[in-house]
Amino acid sequence: MSRAGPGRRPGDPEVTKQTILHAARGRFAAVGFERATIRSIASEAGVDPALVHHHFGSKQSLFAAAHELPIDPGAMVSAVASVPVGARGEAIARAYLAVFGAGETSPAVSLIRAAATNEAAARMLREFIADVFLAKAGELTDQDQPRLRLALIGSHMIGIAFGRVIIGVKDLTDAEIETLVAALAPAFQRYLTEPNLFG
Amino acid sequence: MSRAGPGRRPGDPEVTKQTILHAARGRFAAVGFERATIRSIASEAGVDPALVHHHFGSKQSLFAAAHELPIDPGAMVSAVASVPVGARGEAIARAYLAVFGAGETSPAVSLIRAAATNEAAARMLREFIADVFLAKAGELTDQDQPRLRLALIGSHMIGIAFGRVIIGVKDLTDAEIETLVAALAPAFQRYLTEPNLFG
Repeated sequence: MSRAGPGRRPGDPEVTKQTILHAARGRFAAVGFERATIRSIASEAGVDPALVHHHFGSKQSLFAAAHELPIDPGAMVSAVASVPVGARGEAIARAYLAVFGAGETSPAVSLIRAAATNEAAARMLREFIADVFLAKAGELTDQDQPRLRLALIGSHMIGIAFGRVIIGVKDLTDAEIETLVAALAPAFQRYLTEPNLFG
Repeated sequence: MSRAGPGRRPGDPEVTKQTILHAARGRFAAVGFERATIRSIASEAGVDPALVHHHFGSKQSLFAAAHELPIDPGAMVSAVASVPVGARGEAIARAYLAVFGAGETSPAVSLIRAAATNEAAARMLREFIADVFLAKAGELTDQDQPRLRLALIGSHMIGIAFGRVIIGVKDLTDAEIETLVAALAPAFQRYLTEPNLFG
């Protein structure tokens, strides 16, 4: 995905930055945060490593920049909040499964890989989830403990990504999106709106 | 956890092996499969690295041995199958959350970390899940697609571990076990026994 508008030419700094971000997402998703090097990302983008450092600084900064673009859980929560409350479980399931349509090269997969083995990445994801995603939980439900409710949904979504894309459990990878939506939507809906969820 | 029985003495090969396995579980869980070295595991166990190689061969073999002991999903499925069908969702939730009682040093956490970044570990976990866990799905439910049903439960459980222990999402780490059981048990039960789960 390039944000370079019409009229942008190769050599334009904005085109270069988008090329680097695209390469970074690919490398991080393929080998994880630890093993993706600035050098390999630069090589994939066809630029000098110094140019990557110039535009993005550290690998950590590049990682953050590369993942800000396509996933915006905050915007997703606001979009879900705009549908009737009884349809929000399905809306979340659809929005989430769309993110994983890209499979191995999904930015979300890269985030999960990195968080599993790198404390800096885990902290980034932890803070991101708490500050961007769970902070908006009150927009989705009027029930008690909205953050824990949304955290349960989030944990299930991360687990689906883990099983389907990272571990590659065949039963999950072979399942159609509509099959998964049918199973997940009512589970998410219950987490959002069941008054006695926690006993 | 040591399996050395009463009467076992320090220096006994079985005691040494259990000490090494204990150290291995701790190191793998703390830093993941890639960064845990035989040397560091030997150091933690207070033995020579050559002794680790002698007893367990490769790091991969040591990893497998270290994780066979405390988690046996096959045995867990059989235990769950022995309770009435309507109580199986809760039985799974309780059995699973007990595994994660040890937090960061849980063997399951080590498995998840390793699978996230190491294809050999991912394959090991994938095969383990398919051959040991999902293969027994038919013991738990008479409904259609028993493997996919159990895979959905498994993905949710992995996601809970990921959010609670690996990312450290505060809302999940602060939640009491009983609170989580109340939320998860009916979700798992629905995955097992809802006739129209997939629409």
